[in-house]
Amino acid sequence: MTRTVVASATKEIVIGFDQPFCVIGERINPTGRKKLAAEMVAGDFTTVEADALAQVASGATMLDVNAGVTAVDPNETEPPLLVKTLEIVQNLVDVPLSIDSSVTAAIEAGLQVAKGRPLVNSVTGEEEKLEAILPLVKKYDVPVVAISNDETGISEDPDVRFAVAKKIVERAADYGIPAHDIVVDPLVMPIGAMATAGLQVFALVRRLREELKVNTTCGLSNISFGIPHRHGINAAFIPMVIASGMTSAIMNPCRPQEMEAVRAANVLNGTDENCSTWIMTYRDHAPAAAGASAAPAGGGDAKARRRGGREARRARV
Amino acid sequence: MTRTVVASATKEIVIGFDQPFCVIGERINPTGRKKLAAEMVAGDFTTVEADALAQVASGATMLDVNAGVTAVDPNETEPPLLVKTLEIVQNLVDVPLSIDSSVTAAIEAGLQVAKGRPLVNSVTGEEEKLEAILPLVKKYDVPVVAISNDETGISEDPDVRFAVAKKIVERAADYGIPAHDIVVDPLVMPIGAMATAGLQVFALVRRLREELKVNTTCGLSNISFGIPHRHGINAAFIPMVIASGMTSAIMNPCRPQEMEAVRAANVLNGTDENCSTWIMTYRDHAPAAAGASAAPAGGGDAKARRRGGREARRARV
Repeated sequence: MTRTVVASATKEIVIGFDQPFCVIGERINPTGRKKLAAEMVAGDFTTVEADALAQVASGATMLDVNAGVTAVDPNETEPPLLVKTLEIVQNLVDVPLSIDSSVTAAIEAGLQVAKGRPLVNSVTGEEEKLEAILPLVKKYDVPVVAISNDETGISEDPDVRFAVAKKIVERAADYGIPAHDIVVDPLVMPIGAMATAGLQVFALVRRLREELKVNTTCGLSNISFGIPHRHGINAAFIPMVIASGMTSAIMNPCRPQEMEAVRAANVLNGTDENCSTWIMTYRDHAPAAAGASAAPAGGGDAKARRRGGREARRARV
Repeated sequence: MTRTVVASATKEIVIGFDQPFCVIGERINPTGRKKLAAEMVAGDFTTVEADALAQVASGATMLDVNAGVTAVDPNETEPPLLVKTLEIVQNLVDVPLSIDSSVTAAIEAGLQVAKGRPLVNSVTGEEEKLEAILPLVKKYDVPVVAISNDETGISEDPDVRFAVAKKIVERAADYGIPAHDIVVDPLVMPIGAMATAGLQVFALVRRLREELKVNTTCGLSNISFGIPHRHGINAAFIPMVIASGMTSAIMNPCRPQEMEAVRAANVLNGTDENCSTWIMTYRDHAPAAAGASAAPAGGGDAKARRRGGREARRARV
């Protein structure tokens, strides 16, 4: 059984096929958040702290930490800023962290200060990336997110994306890094731009799991980019990728509709023992509060009936 | 490609792997609805009519029609009552119908009056049922729901349930009924009573599709029997069974959370062309109306960002 172990100073988490879905909180990331970027550059970590607390309170399993404020010279500025951000976050919350940067020096600086066993986010199939990141992953004995693109960009052909993932897993093995420490991101395209985006991911995740025996992740909200009521699409995508075998996602845990989907999928996947997390979370659930309608005209709540009485009673086990 | 064709007098629907999920409205069923049963016995079809209209308005693809009011002698009373109910419903709405009864004489009476190509609900693996129902299915050239239980009841072993389904498909073939006219119900157990109930169904549906090439259905709400906030569990179960290959379900279409999950899964499965049904339904969606929270502290809506700028931009295709 594939087990990717991540840890903070005090808490160990296993990402695996038989584990609750690993929610990697995406909020601590200045990309596309100008105000946050400006704060972080100015040494103000108020929002970082608030986001760390809110995400953990909402049920994040881990937190992604990115300090890419797109300075003129990120090789100079990003390592100390990422170190500072990681230190603030790991002193505030006890969940494992993901060190997220496209700057190799920032990842190495982060690895030097992160407690426990952080996840490195990320390596790609690009030669330069492989040669820069995999030695660090080996040196610090940590798991790494492997994104299925290479020098030629992101292929729209899922077979090519699988081949890139396979190449990364094989190259990692050359460095002595086991497959269970590679978490593949098969890359999620927006469904509004590519009608097969969902089917591609479901098939890819299944194949990655069965053939490469790796855990998988994705930037979840990409799927719904550009279409209305994105949370509804995201909330269905989560159970679908989980049913296909995906074991983690980088997502916003502060969205109740998405987190409800994660918790329900854990119940249905058999990883919420005795449904206890679900029952704890929703035992006092008032339907109106979650947007469910009142009972339709003419009847009460849908009972566990099926068809004629005999079958229905039998079906209740 | 497996195609199960059902039709009303004026409307043909295909149930298939490449089709939008077929929602079979479950509401017209007096099982567990004492008030409805009393009305129907008294010849009052007000609720039947209201339920027919409400379900179609909510997006039901088909309607199940059951008149099992559990009289002393259902063989006498159920056929005329089912006929009456079917006639009322098919004169009111134009969707295909499912003739739902455990009384063979009622199914035959229904087949004599139903317009188009109704679905028969159901046959099981019981010898008596097979011999009673399959000749009718052949005679009237209609599709049938095949429930995976037999004289020994419902097995908790999914391999046994698969074997029962296989037996029904083979027996149907002896009568000249093709596999594409069998819609197998693999039977859904309550997840609160059996932690593997979800995993069992996902694996069974995949196997039924790949090995027997049949469409599948289930009494959807059984999965959440006995646990709090059932709609949340149902709404995640739908995308999971759809990702596993299920093509229809008998469910309550008047539940917005469940129907939203169906519509989103259709988008993600590539069966909602250009996302047009989704966009039509949700283009003016106000998050608060569906229970999504306001944006979390510290940021706007989650953009389709992923990690560092370069990868994120590329991932947008």
